[in-house]
Amino acid sequence: MSILVVGSVAIDSVETPFGKRDKALGGSATYFSMAASLFNKVNIIATVGTDFPKKYILLFEKRGIGIEGLKIAQGNTFRWKGRYDYDLNTAHTIFTHLNVFRDFKPQIPTSLKNSEFIFLANIDPELQHDVLRQVGHAKLIACDSMNYWITHKRGHFEKLLNKVDIMLLNDSEARQFTGESNLMKAARIMISKGPRAVIIKKGEHGVIYFSKNRHFVAPAYLLDSVYDPTGAGDTFAGGLIGYLSRQSKINEKTIRKGIIYGNIMASFAVEDFSINKLLKISKDSVAKRYKHYMEITKF
Amino acid sequence: MSILVVGSVAIDSVETPFGKRDKALGGSATYFSMAASLFNKVNIIATVGTDFPKKYILLFEKRGIGIEGLKIAQGNTFRWKGRYDYDLNTAHTIFTHLNVFRDFKPQIPTSLKNSEFIFLANIDPELQHDVLRQVGHAKLIACDSMNYWITHKRGHFEKLLNKVDIMLLNDSEARQFTGESNLMKAARIMISKGPRAVIIKKGEHGVIYFSKNRHFVAPAYLLDSVYDPTGAGDTFAGGLIGYLSRQSKINEKTIRKGIIYGNIMASFAVEDFSINKLLKISKDSVAKRYKHYMEITKF
Repeated sequence: MSILVVGSVAIDSVETPFGKRDKALGGSATYFSMAASLFNKVNIIATVGTDFPKKYILLFEKRGIGIEGLKIAQGNTFRWKGRYDYDLNTAHTIFTHLNVFRDFKPQIPTSLKNSEFIFLANIDPELQHDVLRQVGHAKLIACDSMNYWITHKRGHFEKLLNKVDIMLLNDSEARQFTGESNLMKAARIMISKGPRAVIIKKGEHGVIYFSKNRHFVAPAYLLDSVYDPTGAGDTFAGGLIGYLSRQSKINEKTIRKGIIYGNIMASFAVEDFSINKLLKISKDSVAKRYKHYMEITKF
Repeated sequence: MSILVVGSVAIDSVETPFGKRDKALGGSATYFSMAASLFNKVNIIATVGTDFPKKYILLFEKRGIGIEGLKIAQGNTFRWKGRYDYDLNTAHTIFTHLNVFRDFKPQIPTSLKNSEFIFLANIDPELQHDVLRQVGHAKLIACDSMNYWITHKRGHFEKLLNKVDIMLLNDSEARQFTGESNLMKAARIMISKGPRAVIIKKGEHGVIYFSKNRHFVAPAYLLDSVYDPTGAGDTFAGGLIGYLSRQSKINEKTIRKGIIYGNIMASFAVEDFSINKLLKISKDSVAKRYKHYMEITKF
């Protein structure tokens, strides 16, 4: 029942009104795997450069994350620098240096082709299709994307909807893709294109889950200090899929619980820069916050 | 156990991407009373001009709303004209003509001085203090305000916090008043100034309720068509206080349920212009939507 994630491992520099960190470990596959590995074995497919610090490799290993598919290529690691103002829902990119990530061609090792849970983090939709051609019949395939691909590779992105079980997008991306400002209508349009479910992420306002005939609304866990929202969406996906990979059935009930675990994991991620908080928490911290979440939402 | 609301009765012209209405019935006391009257007897304290259409008076009467305190003054009724773009959370005011509302001095009729539930809708905080001097010891006093008063009558607004049980503000107002962007911290600052509880309204993202030691997060009821968000906050308050006025106890449990009723009533209000939808719904429609709300939030 192991989990496979295909995405980026990056070196991020981030500034928020609450501080800044230079050259910290980042990337979608990093956040996802740090969250999901609290629940189950995760294997990463990504690429880094020869400059990638050894200490970060050790972090993955200590967490039990499989790095057989982490390719070290000649050149520099993907670097992103960004800034958030008080509206922590909006990232302002200062620079993106793709570096070795520009030539990333995901190769799934034979031993991982039958992974049962697959997360296609935000990369070029053509590469996401490539991954799907390499793997066997998974129990669950979830997929994320971003505004850039919706604009520049719309056709490839649209075809993905028919090949994945759950598509995750943030609210502005769902609106952009569908041309519909109402999120229920946007979700229905997306669902009509094939996925079993759509999850629309609203940052500090939580998420909305839609399947063909039902929906579920889950507010975010309320925090009194948010330091760095980078990676919240991927951490959410890691909590959701990590939890689901431990369940005997994937149905409305387990997906809803998984979404709450996703919210909880994301709430930890944003409480410190990079993956710092995710490294500190235990299964107990997660269980305690899940219980508190139940308390603050029950009526 | 009757309810008293002090606020505005207005004639609104509203334009949204989904249509427009000219000279429709509006005002905070109107929305509040139309919602609360589905639960209990409501009395209005407000003023209108001699131009106020008789048909609107009849609407209040048909709903059983007490208009003993609705003063008809020489001049024109308060008029507001506004526009919403696709971001329905932000109203753009085209004009505000206070007219007779400029000289509004709430006079509480003797028979209503012992009302047990009082809602001080958004009016000059000095007038809200005036009302509190006229009434007896109520079971619950809730209060709303707006950015204008927080800027121009900050001292009077701040003193109100120590005199009311529940202060309702929207998120931007709570941030403005406290100078704190984090809503939990903003709520704590407000609570330290005296009220038993604070409700922060986040429009389409729902509300957050804070008491001294606890909080409760309630997402909005998800809709696939929102026509006009005008009055949603006052309708929310009407649902909350209407529900509470029918309970034998006001405690964490009944307040939480009341907040959900507030959300439900607000969800109806925004589905049509003015109070049109509120006039059409029955207790059964409310109960049905409450049940659906439970379904879409349970996990």
